[in-house]
Amino acid sequence: MDELRVELGERAYPIVVGPGLIDDAARLRASIPASAAVVTSERIAPLYLGRISAALRGAGVPTIEIVLPDGESAKTAATLEMVYSALLEKRCDRKTTLVALGGGVVGDLTGFAAATYQRGVPYVQVPTTLLAQVDSSVGGKTAINHPLGKNMIGAFHQPNLVLIDTATLASLPEREYRSGLAEVIKYGLIDDLDFLAWLEGHLDALLARDAQALTHAILRSCSIKARIVAADERESGMRAWLNLGHTFGHAIEAGLGYGEWLHGEAVAAGMVAAADLSARLGYIGTADVERVVRLIARAGLPVAAPNFGPDRYLGLMRGDKKSEAGAIRYVLLTRLGVARVEPVADAIVAATLATVATG
Amino acid sequence: MDELRVELGERAYPIVVGPGLIDDAARLRASIPASAAVVTSERIAPLYLGRISAALRGAGVPTIEIVLPDGESAKTAATLEMVYSALLEKRCDRKTTLVALGGGVVGDLTGFAAATYQRGVPYVQVPTTLLAQVDSSVGGKTAINHPLGKNMIGAFHQPNLVLIDTATLASLPEREYRSGLAEVIKYGLIDDLDFLAWLEGHLDALLARDAQALTHAILRSCSIKARIVAADERESGMRAWLNLGHTFGHAIEAGLGYGEWLHGEAVAAGMVAAADLSARLGYIGTADVERVVRLIARAGLPVAAPNFGPDRYLGLMRGDKKSEAGAIRYVLLTRLGVARVEPVADAIVAATLATVATG
Repeated sequence: MDELRVELGERAYPIVVGPGLIDDAARLRASIPASAAVVTSERIAPLYLGRISAALRGAGVPTIEIVLPDGESAKTAATLEMVYSALLEKRCDRKTTLVALGGGVVGDLTGFAAATYQRGVPYVQVPTTLLAQVDSSVGGKTAINHPLGKNMIGAFHQPNLVLIDTATLASLPEREYRSGLAEVIKYGLIDDLDFLAWLEGHLDALLARDAQALTHAILRSCSIKARIVAADERESGMRAWLNLGHTFGHAIEAGLGYGEWLHGEAVAAGMVAAADLSARLGYIGTADVERVVRLIARAGLPVAAPNFGPDRYLGLMRGDKKSEAGAIRYVLLTRLGVARVEPVADAIVAATLATVATG
Repeated sequence: MDELRVELGERAYPIVVGPGLIDDAARLRASIPASAAVVTSERIAPLYLGRISAALRGAGVPTIEIVLPDGESAKTAATLEMVYSALLEKRCDRKTTLVALGGGVVGDLTGFAAATYQRGVPYVQVPTTLLAQVDSSVGGKTAINHPLGKNMIGAFHQPNLVLIDTATLASLPEREYRSGLAEVIKYGLIDDLDFLAWLEGHLDALLARDAQALTHAILRSCSIKARIVAADERESGMRAWLNLGHTFGHAIEAGLGYGEWLHGEAVAAGMVAAADLSARLGYIGTADVERVVRLIARAGLPVAAPNFGPDRYLGLMRGDKKSEAGAIRYVLLTRLGVARVEPVADAIVAATLATVATG
């Protein structure tokens, strides 16, 4: 088991990574002082719910289980209401720790339930997808969707523990797994050229889900995210780096209708667009762009975006919640391994779209 | 205009008190850096919405208005959803400041909307009832009700400003006004014997809504609450003092069905019960209890609680969200002006109920 800490003062918490951790009763017990409510999805419940509940109960933690419908379409106020009702019916109080067992939807929604149930209860993230393990489970962002926009309702609420059982990735469908790799690649691009080179050297091992390569990639990713989040908990500055590829990516997801492309697929094509834009602004060279494209393509991820036309793209990007009063701030690369954020003239963005949005 | 500060480090904020403040464009502008969304109720809208919106727009603040149904029955997820939808439809972003114009329902619900819209936007409290002015608008507690319990869903989220226009009390119905006085009396009892004596001396002026007496009583109340909240933002210790009379009071409200008695009426009878219990435990004398009863009676508030029988009372109090694992912690008086919190044997509580719950 490897461990790192997210340094957030009195809200600091550990991230532990290793195979078989969902059975580690002592580790769970150490972060769950009283009772637990495990929240999971219909897909994950038959795979891991019984095991983690058994570990908790075996450690003397009174545990209830809440099983939610599966998928992004369940990330709604109605599903949240199911969680609140179950907690109230079981008379869960302010000492109950919610345990989010699943992917990003379960993690975001359970985290938001924890942020708001009786004005806030503790929670533990047990992410079971690569995307959730390297991204959404770290950083304290919680949310549900609104009919008028994704993640529009939410809160910042830090978990007490992120427990990453790498063995749970064995049950992850290939397309979802590769989608998670997009975020791993992102960390190399925005913050760590050495890690980017390591990824180029170990991509085949990662694609084979080699345990050792996975543990390294997850720890490195979480460590970069944890450092950025600790420096900028509420997303006023460098935390925006984490959105490399996401401004374009969200436009792709919204333009196609959410669910058509996976999040990581949209982010992958979005990172190609961000790299192209960075080259047009003279920050990186075309050889750098090609290096980005090559790695993303090797991971089996899209390097071209759908062609909606520049006006539609710009309109979708202006509607993103990171845009303030209609000004789009792009995450760019000063060089590989170094991010920067700035507005860019629409005409230059249109040129990038003409190159990248050709799918 | 009088002003005090709630000292919460980087979340410190001012409370300003005085007549006519809702027209004070410069004061509003100083705490609202970009645009505003004023949230109010159908009852308050015709009285004050036009004036505050005119002040804001006159100061160059783009302002939208959201009018909600009136009353405690509107403090629901469905009403909250109305606020989110209005904000999204008007493309309000993370720089939009919500302005809660109204009583406790509007303040609590708007505060919770601010805590959760796009993971948190600033808000300003403009309370228009005495109860909201001396209690709910200060301290950062926000919430909505759930079908299974009051204030069960919420967050701690501090406002940027609490602006108390004492002139708005002119439109408050007498029964609601007297209900607010219960919380004012509470501050004297838990923290300030001098203030308690001042209230005894100035109760007639307060009942006549004398402007000068009101400003003093509101400032003193807010100052006590602000100091307690600053010392204990998240309600782990002395903040519990603020619940004097509330454990019994919530049981009265729940037992009668919410809305039958006003909150302050239930708290008033609850404070009599807490005083009686404190005397039974030997902390205060019977003369002290009589002094509490006399002041509450002079304010036109109930000094006897409904008679549900002790079992029902104890059951209702165990269901309160402040109870942990079924242990009820009572707020008591060590002496007048000094509070303490501790569990009490059911038999002693039953004796108090036999004396006080005779209505």
